[in-house]
Amino acid sequence: MAASGEPGRQWQEEVAAVVVVGSCMTDLVSLTSRLPKTGETIHGHKFFIGFGGKGANQCVQAARLGAKTAIVCKVGKDSFGNDYIENLKQNGISTEFTYQTKDAATGAASIIVNNEGQNIIVIVAGANSLLNTEDLREATSVISRAKVMICQLEITPATSLEALTMARSSGVKTLFNPAPAIADLDARFYTLSDVFCCNESEAEILTGVAVGGPAEAGKAAQVLVQRGCQVAVITLGAAGCVMLSQTDPVPKHILTEKVKAVDTTGAGDSFVGALAFYMAYYPNLSLEEMLKRSNFIAAVSVQVAGTQSSYPYKKDLPFALF
Amino acid sequence: MAASGEPGRQWQEEVAAVVVVGSCMTDLVSLTSRLPKTGETIHGHKFFIGFGGKGANQCVQAARLGAKTAIVCKVGKDSFGNDYIENLKQNGISTEFTYQTKDAATGAASIIVNNEGQNIIVIVAGANSLLNTEDLREATSVISRAKVMICQLEITPATSLEALTMARSSGVKTLFNPAPAIADLDARFYTLSDVFCCNESEAEILTGVAVGGPAEAGKAAQVLVQRGCQVAVITLGAAGCVMLSQTDPVPKHILTEKVKAVDTTGAGDSFVGALAFYMAYYPNLSLEEMLKRSNFIAAVSVQVAGTQSSYPYKKDLPFALF
Repeated sequence: MAASGEPGRQWQEEVAAVVVVGSCMTDLVSLTSRLPKTGETIHGHKFFIGFGGKGANQCVQAARLGAKTAIVCKVGKDSFGNDYIENLKQNGISTEFTYQTKDAATGAASIIVNNEGQNIIVIVAGANSLLNTEDLREATSVISRAKVMICQLEITPATSLEALTMARSSGVKTLFNPAPAIADLDARFYTLSDVFCCNESEAEILTGVAVGGPAEAGKAAQVLVQRGCQVAVITLGAAGCVMLSQTDPVPKHILTEKVKAVDTTGAGDSFVGALAFYMAYYPNLSLEEMLKRSNFIAAVSVQVAGTQSSYPYKKDLPFALF
Repeated sequence: MAASGEPGRQWQEEVAAVVVVGSCMTDLVSLTSRLPKTGETIHGHKFFIGFGGKGANQCVQAARLGAKTAIVCKVGKDSFGNDYIENLKQNGISTEFTYQTKDAATGAASIIVNNEGQNIIVIVAGANSLLNTEDLREATSVISRAKVMICQLEITPATSLEALTMARSSGVKTLFNPAPAIADLDARFYTLSDVFCCNESEAEILTGVAVGGPAEAGKAAQVLVQRGCQVAVITLGAAGCVMLSQTDPVPKHILTEKVKAVDTTGAGDSFVGALAFYMAYYPNLSLEEMLKRSNFIAAVSVQVAGTQSSYPYKKDLPFALF
């Protein structure tokens, strides 16, 4: 196993190797026996608050694997915002560039889940949509010194594009997760992505290729690579993932272990966070090996309920992963 | 105008004239352009947190009219619970018997509202459903010394029944609001109610009489009075309300003023809270006059957005109401 660096050893303690420019959301989860129809008031049996948002989720998973991390994000000047900052700190994530605004509430996702696991989700981006390019410029020092920067689409596309541009110009590897997917994604997102990583339904929205399995995923990945990303990864849930690169244009299917899934919420973010960790700390590993290990970590996360609460720590994982 | 008492003059300051035994809910409101379908994630444009729950709403309205009030209720030992207690205090409501429990979260209502005002609501009663008869016994001193006690059905029916029984045995007037309605409501709820006050759809669930207007409301009210309540009041939104009593079994339709409604959420609770205020402080007014004034106050509340935030204060209302 070629380990190029141990967290916090090869460069200064204060420099984050994995930087996320992305979202924080407070998950407001109601569990019900069935989903409500229009105009209906129904009673649920449980309510709980969780920490979510794709940006923070991915950052938390990378941090729990031992990565030195920072997040550039915006929450509201409200109790959800304060609680979120505390959560980031407890995960060892630098919040130096976690902005708080009075102009919008902390992002919130109202999630209603029935007994069969079907859901209804309403996301109000709130403060996330106020993260702007000026905020990024203030955070230049942390972005430009990272090994890997991750972006998603839960902040405004213009801000994500600027972040990717900044990272690329500083030689920072870019990992872009186009979620939630936009059908007419700006072409620069592809050319600015070292790794372009999405799930099957996102791949379908982006490419128009109906992704039913690994074969179609390979075709969709070819479309993504043709658009200019260095590597395309399409995750397939229990079927693992498919990868393809500019230098090796033959799709590879990377299987994952069979596990009993309890809750798949946030599994994709666990995968992306793990991949960023390997890209930053084990750059000499083959991409195939990185994806195999990221598959494994995401598979651990689905065996526990919750989103961030299901993400494993380094200490709980097999030594062979590190 | 026969005013039997001025708030805080006729009896000791520390005695609440209006006591509510009922619910507190944190309203988690997402505004969207359309409502989501099963399995769908959609984006909303605004999220905000409000104070709701029928019990607290009614208590807040009574308090804002100048009533000395107390609420017997249960919230979680969590930040929503702490915030709710602060809200009650800011409204001048005694929280001596506002219990906090570690065993459940503060009641929460996830509310999704589209541009047309249609909604989807999921209520998780949480701590509200843990309010029990032992809690009521601890609060005997406040319940037994009240002028009026209000109950609804957002706590367990057994607790509401016990509260009504306690009030009745101490000669405290009972105002029961059977909301949300239960088709097979325990018969004792009727006999223990001095005033049984519900809206048209609740009346329909309880009586089986389809309530399309004042005439049918009169018929439904007759059924309710036959079941044993002293007075039945059925609210009809913009059409005012209909009343009927054991002593005067001819339905009376009490009209309300025409107003431009902005948000009718919580208007029924404004009405009930106002009615309790009049029953406690102006017992010599005719019931018809009390309902006319309660209609007016509820009509003021619908002209402002929000639930408790739309409830008027005495200082903002015509002098003739007091």
